[in-house]
Amino acid sequence: MLFQVLDYLGVAVFAFSGAVVASRKRLDFIAFLFFATLTGIGGGTLRDLILGVPVFWVGGDGYLIVCFCVSVFVWFFGGFVERLGKPLRWADAVGLSAYSVMGAAKALSVGDAVFVAVLMGVATATFGGVLRDVIARESSAIIKPEIYVSAAFVGAGTYVALFSVGAGGWISALVGGALALSLRGGAIQRG
Amino acid sequence: MLFQVLDYLGVAVFAFSGAVVASRKRLDFIAFLFFATLTGIGGGTLRDLILGVPVFWVGGDGYLIVCFCVSVFVWFFGGFVERLGKPLRWADAVGLSAYSVMGAAKALSVGDAVFVAVLMGVATATFGGVLRDVIARESSAIIKPEIYVSAAFVGAGTYVALFSVGAGGWISALVGGALALSLRGGAIQRG
Amino acid sequence: MLFQVLDYLGVAVFAFSGAVVASRKRLDFIAFLFFATLTGIGGGTLRDLILGVPVFWVGGDGYLIVCFCVSVFVWFFGGFVERLGKPLRWADAVGLSAYSVMGAAKALSVGDAVFVAVLMGVATATFGGVLRDVIARESSAIIKPEIYVSAAFVGAGTYVALFSVGAGGWISALVGGALALSLRGGAIQRG
Repeated sequence: MLFQVLDYLGVAVFAFSGAVVASRKRLDFIAFLFFATLTGIGGGTLRDLILGVPVFWVGGDGYLIVCFCVSVFVWFFGGFVERLGKPLRWADAVGLSAYSVMGAAKALSVGDAVFVAVLMGVATATFGGVLRDVIARESSAIIKPEIYVSAAFVGAGTYVALFSVGAGGWISALVGGALALSLRGGAIQRG
Repeated sequence: MLFQVLDYLGVAVFAFSGAVVASRKRLDFIAFLFFATLTGIGGGTLRDLILGVPVFWVGGDGYLIVCFCVSVFVWFFGGFVERLGKPLRWADAVGLSAYSVMGAAKALSVGDAVFVAVLMGVATATFGGVLRDVIARESSAIIKPEIYVSAAFVGAGTYVALFSVGAGGWISALVGGALALSLRGGAIQRG
Repeated sequence: MLFQVLDYLGVAVFAFSGAVVASRKRLDFIAFLFFATLTGIGGGTLRDLILGVPVFWVGGDGYLIVCFCVSVFVWFFGGFVERLGKPLRWADAVGLSAYSVMGAAKALSVGDAVFVAVLMGVATATFGGVLRDVIARESSAIIKPEIYVSAAFVGAGTYVALFSVGAGGWISALVGGALALSLRGGAIQRG
């Protein structure tokens, strides 16, 4: 249940950030779908491949339908959304927070190596955005002097630490995710 | 049988497009092999990893021998081939068409989620070329305003639609592949 | 035993080369960890995914602790290390040599296709460095006119050839690795 909520949340907001990139570059609708889906499911796909579990979106069409709906939304309301502020970076921040926790949680569910769990959190959180930026030839947040990987690191680390000392899954996820979002959000506000 | 024909066709033409990139950049023969093999087997490797089936070229040396022969051919006849027109883009177009159908077909052979099948077709068709362009630091067709992902989308979607309503595998593959190739080929001719 | 020695050696030196990139770009410590880990475990991760075996670093925290220690070292002594010469390229060369042999050896341990084994050697040896360069937006050695992929090719090919005619694993690994390192080292010295 926790896994599914976090996965759908991560997919939706990362898909949104991918569609916004397509919108800025004035690409066609298929490119919206491409970037939304790539960014939305990229991180979780890497996580599941490395952990050796079935890739989360292959079993049914639900996750892809989410990416499709997000693409349609940004296709029609992209200009409006852009005027609200920094939608790409905020969506990316929410996805980063949700997936940092989710990657760590899923890793702990198949093994008990804590550093591996933290790394899986960071990788899941950052891989979709890196893919998006590399293929769109944008400069990735990873090599800029701002808090990005660090936020994912704190989110995943907090989750693993709390969960290891016996806190419940939801509590650990909420605290870890909130910390990651605060850190990353602060960087966006300042920068 | 259908799978093998499409896989060998996709590998051969994508390998050709990779070798042409190496030829244009005047790289050494090992780099020809590198780009030919990377582009040739990249898309199908991603497909098989995500579907959780054995990677198609690992069981024997056949596919790699194809990449080797293509590299040798382009090494000796690259200059001649370039004068014929736009060999890289046409080889890429044929590979795109064959793999859009092949990715969808293999996905339907291990599951029944139709959107997943279409996505696997698009991913298989485009991933090899994206790898080639990212590593060669060329601008990928994906972010240019031309029909590329769309063609793969139409090819995979047509295959899945026809196959789902009961058409045979070969018919569905031929119609889907021909549609994808027409769309992509038209874009190359105009552009 | 041979596998573990080569894996730890490859991880350590590739992690070092990743941390040096982070040091040159004056990134924060988390970025050191990111580049060190990505470069350190990237090649072996690709190898294990394609071969369909468990990813080598997921079972325990040992490999990640190596990446952490290397990051701390470069964080404190990066400037000193840079003055010694070309640390990034030499570390990359040692990793390339170790992993060209290791990738081929692991492939032969799960199958008997010799070209596949050579390719797995080359892929394992070069993938970590390619990831590092693509994400850091550096020009990859792969598309420069110098001996890079060739060295990995010679290392993997020599290992496979010697092992196939009955030489022991350690002998084959030493000869293959030494040849790859000589070739790559010569290119670094000259260029």
